[in-house]
Amino acid sequence: MATLYHVPLSPFCRKVRLSLAEKKIECELIEERYWEQDPDFLRRNPAGKVPVLKIDGMTLSESAAICEYLEETRPDVPLLPKDPVGRFEVRRLVGWFDDKFHREVTSNLVYERVNKKVMKQGYPDSKNVKTGSQKIKYHLDYMTWLLDQRRWLAGDVMTLADFAAAAHLSALDYISDVDWNRSEAVKDWYAKIKSRPAFRGILADQVPGFPPPAHYADLDF
Amino acid sequence: MATLYHVPLSPFCRKVRLSLAEKKIECELIEERYWEQDPDFLRRNPAGKVPVLKIDGMTLSESAAICEYLEETRPDVPLLPKDPVGRFEVRRLVGWFDDKFHREVTSNLVYERVNKKVMKQGYPDSKNVKTGSQKIKYHLDYMTWLLDQRRWLAGDVMTLADFAAAAHLSALDYISDVDWNRSEAVKDWYAKIKSRPAFRGILADQVPGFPPPAHYADLDF
Repeated sequence: MATLYHVPLSPFCRKVRLSLAEKKIECELIEERYWEQDPDFLRRNPAGKVPVLKIDGMTLSESAAICEYLEETRPDVPLLPKDPVGRFEVRRLVGWFDDKFHREVTSNLVYERVNKKVMKQGYPDSKNVKTGSQKIKYHLDYMTWLLDQRRWLAGDVMTLADFAAAAHLSALDYISDVDWNRSEAVKDWYAKIKSRPAFRGILADQVPGFPPPAHYADLDF
Repeated sequence: MATLYHVPLSPFCRKVRLSLAEKKIECELIEERYWEQDPDFLRRNPAGKVPVLKIDGMTLSESAAICEYLEETRPDVPLLPKDPVGRFEVRRLVGWFDDKFHREVTSNLVYERVNKKVMKQGYPDSKNVKTGSQKIKYHLDYMTWLLDQRRWLAGDVMTLADFAAAAHLSALDYISDVDWNRSEAVKDWYAKIKSRPAFRGILADQVPGFPPPAHYADLDF
């Protein structure tokens, strides 16, 4: 059985958790307070961050590399299409969410509101929170534009791009930072992905001191 | 022929340029002042950053996705090994350099010293420069540790991991921010990669107002 060292609201961990669950890879979850820099953990991953996945006798880090490894070794449930152009589009969007969206939105909201308190690093910086709340609008509009032309974000089948996006949005939804009224298309897309069995673990997450809003785990939000 | 929109010292552009050159894909380079947010450029890439590659009738962005696309469509000169474990290790290290190294070192040195002036965003923040100068030591030591066990960073053949690392280090070397005396192993590795024909374009780069030091293009540095 695999073991994943993670923190509940990390979008990078959530993307890996969704991939594992969709591919039906059994995995034990261990919460890792990586900011405490436990020497045992640093030995497992010198980068000192989560996710870290123990699988096939190895210890893997870097969420993008982990997802590609799972795709190559467990291709039965594919999360990337077969053609290079389709694969490019999935990877482009994974990069979009894990780099641009993360920098502009997730780090300004989830990190300011939750991580700082959990890591005892002070109070949220209201300037950053305001920036994140502004920037998410543009990203929701970009997703709407994509979903006007496609059933899923990268094309007509669900892929890792949808999991990357849902990983960020679900972490933001846990702290009520997504305005689902802004876009019918994004809301419908999230309802579809949220109702997948792979999403159940994510919806059951609880961060001490931060109870999720009632709509968080509700499939008819 | 392909066209790459780039800026000379961007490590992400350099990684793509090295991949293109190693794979012998002819490519015209166009310098793109992306921070000026030219509407034509934003139409090509809504993420508003470089590199952007026009190839095969498409316009591609996100350097990691671009490199995977080149690998899948031009496999003759491989930059990833064939086995999933070897591929994982390459991707892990590309992530290490493009995320961790970039955040801790490149953005604190190249961005503070060069980009801020070019983009007219003020003066270098000496606190950040100091942090970058400190952090690079740890990364050079990590590379030394890897190279003690391997001929190249990810194994016994040169891969995209070496190009990702060399892209960052060459940009730092342009502003004399690499202490080559710290590690014989890293210096030897850089000498090997620097002498490849694919590296010539990188060594010929010139940023107005920032002449490179004499050793920058010298193969016997």
